Amino acid sequence: MLPFDIVEYQNRLCKTKERMSERGIEVLLITDPANMNYLSGYDAWSFYVHQMLVIIIDEPQPLWVGRYQDAHGAKATTWIYDENIIAYPDYYVQSSHYHPMVFIADILKQIGQGNRHIGVEMDNYYFSAKAYYMLQQNLPDATFKDADLLVNYVRIIKSEQEIEYMKRAAKIADQAMAVGVKTMKPNLRECDAAATIYRELISGTENYGGDYPAIVPLLPSGENTSAPHLTWTDRTYEQGESVVVELAGCYKRYHVPLARTVSIGQPSKELQNITPIVIEGLTKVLESIKPGMTCGEIEGIWQKSIKQHGIEKEARLGYSVGLNYPPDWGEHTASIRKGDPTVLQPNMTFHLIPALWFENYGIEISESFRVTESGCESFTKFPSKLIVQDPFSLNEQDGKIS
Amino acid sequence: MLPFDIVEYQNRLCKTKERMSERGIEVLLITDPANMNYLSGYDAWSFYVHQMLVIIIDEPQPLWVGRYQDAHGAKATTWIYDENIIAYPDYYVQSSHYHPMVFIADILKQIGQGNRHIGVEMDNYYFSAKAYYMLQQNLPDATFKDADLLVNYVRIIKSEQEIEYMKRAAKIADQAMAVGVKTMKPNLRECDAAATIYRELISGTENYGGDYPAIVPLLPSGENTSAPHLTWTDRTYEQGESVVVELAGCYKRYHVPLARTVSIGQPSKELQNITPIVIEGLTKVLESIKPGMTCGEIEGIWQKSIKQHGIEKEARLGYSVGLNYPPDWGEHTASIRKGDPTVLQPNMTFHLIPALWFENYGIEISESFRVTESGCESFTKFPSKLIVQDPFSLNEQDGKIS
Repeated sequence: MLPFDIVEYQNRLCKTKERMSERGIEVLLITDPANMNYLSGYDAWSFYVHQMLVIIIDEPQPLWVGRYQDAHGAKATTWIYDENIIAYPDYYVQSSHYHPMVFIADILKQIGQGNRHIGVEMDNYYFSAKAYYMLQQNLPDATFKDADLLVNYVRIIKSEQEIEYMKRAAKIADQAMAVGVKTMKPNLRECDAAATIYRELISGTENYGGDYPAIVPLLPSGENTSAPHLTWTDRTYEQGESVVVELAGCYKRYHVPLARTVSIGQPSKELQNITPIVIEGLTKVLESIKPGMTCGEIEGIWQKSIKQHGIEKEARLGYSVGLNYPPDWGEHTASIRKGDPTVLQPNMTFHLIPALWFENYGIEISESFRVTESGCESFTKFPSKLIVQDPFSLNEQDGKIS
Repeated sequence: MLPFDIVEYQNRLCKTKERMSERGIEVLLITDPANMNYLSGYDAWSFYVHQMLVIIIDEPQPLWVGRYQDAHGAKATTWIYDENIIAYPDYYVQSSHYHPMVFIADILKQIGQGNRHIGVEMDNYYFSAKAYYMLQQNLPDATFKDADLLVNYVRIIKSEQEIEYMKRAAKIADQAMAVGVKTMKPNLRECDAAATIYRELISGTENYGGDYPAIVPLLPSGENTSAPHLTWTDRTYEQGESVVVELAGCYKRYHVPLARTVSIGQPSKELQNITPIVIEGLTKVLESIKPGMTCGEIEGIWQKSIKQHGIEKEARLGYSVGLNYPPDWGEHTASIRKGDPTVLQPNMTFHLIPALWFENYGIEISESFRVTESGCESFTKFPSKLIVQDPFSLNEQDGKIS
């Protein structure tokens, strides 16, 4: 049932403990659901309540601590022995009287960990200000340390099995983009395009099913292509407008994102002018990537390329990608941007998205790649170009998907 | 473009300021995306970076503060004047050197708010321990107060327009459940059932499109029906096993959840025995609900009903529901459970989900309802029963949706 061999989980745990040791952390409280999954296999939509994995430096097994009704799921999806699955009663859930971190602090004291150096993931979505406050109040003898991204940095180099899962995610991404883009014609509602893309992402291929992506398909259209994180509405597409589609295929929580810009009918002059500049920059970057370079150097190649055309880009170009849960598929470690010192190594995986946004329009053409021994290779096969949905091939349709 | 009249937003803001005033809060930092949407209309998948709405008690307009590339989306989706949209540069995003809360603290100092009583949403997913720490470090003259759920409690009673949106969400939920359940037959892959449900949820009806639900459709099957928060895999359904489907229709971020249990072929003895007990309890509860009762009293009716059959339930029965973003569609205010003192008032809206989980199976049959002047009314129309997918109506199929 586990997506990886138990040896791989133990290897991950071992690397995590090495980093704990380097930083003087004896007990690590993992609240990031991706890190929980990475170390234990745990996979459920239960991260909307407080839960964690406790890694104790001198204990062989993690503890899973979560809500009572989720303990069955923990037993079903992890390699952790049943006696290490600890559940709190339901009256702790979203209560004004009881906080799960008090329960967890009590457990830590009971097992003799209350006076140790405890690492917490300070900037994670699933470690709220209140969670930290309650732990501090209830573990007065502990010394807290910021262990944010500690496990994320272990995740940054993928194993062969992880790369294989990302290749499957890539096939799903290619398929969803191909099928989704094909539907984009005048009078189609944005929500129906999104529905088609979603169906493909979740259904997956004949050989393996898809998983839910950590971010919904983003598909701003018309003037809203200047606003990258808008989702869909039920307005209908109009002839001559463009749509930016950013999606990710997902397989066993591993993501491969892919963005393309679609012109419904003849592209605007602006899009026609900007597209070759973006593709030239993207191509130069992909051709230059080699192990040993830094992320900052990659960014320099892009800036040099677009500067020749009088363009500058403020936002980062990309980020490390892989295993994740909502609300983000990025790993929050390496960013492809000015000054990022991360040195590329084989089997690091990135989403390179040198998007440009202007006052009334935007363009996104992206590639997800893995660093190889000598360069890099794209995960997806979908053509890197502006997609033009030819107006002369229009069929009559009512805008509702079949 | 706004989903509500500007007067409704101003009314919400007014109620929020009343509560701020009662609690001695002069500046309220809203990081919950649902609360940001509720007060300003802001709607984008940008909550994976730090962002907020700043409500200043003696200023008529909120400030939106977020990432540079999201400022266009803020201008497009809110009623806030452009000069109140404040953006931080991209180098603040997921950086080890720069934290957005330092930028925000600087803004607050610049506009003379650095020494005031500042409310923060202490237990929100989007207010991390680090976010609070950085604010405290950079606003040494401020007095911080816990304002968690302050706006959520304003949201607890819905306006007529909100109820109308929930009715649309209910139609979408009914449709997705009906179409999804119909596909559930032996040899169908779980992911294909999920894909069909997703397509229906997002496409919506002919008259209005659907929005993404804050939780993915949950559909554990077989023995995993004892683990409520597992998602799907690509295994295929087998004759005689059951599937628990929990989904929500969503319209303009308003949710109406709906859960049903489906038996593929003849239901097990256990399911046949437990189903009438659950339906009896559910019916008694719905018949008893009246404004003026407390949520705790509702729970008592359920416990009394199932106790006659020798059953007890540990987990809460339900919760306030409506506007939300991932990872939860519940509002984190009222829970239908023992001792909850919330007094029911007309246009409060709940998801009543008296689920039961046993060692090897579970059952979920739920209703979302609104409290009326004299009782309650269910949002959805899907029959409240165990759904049996008759084995005699099977068609040959390959498990892949068409």
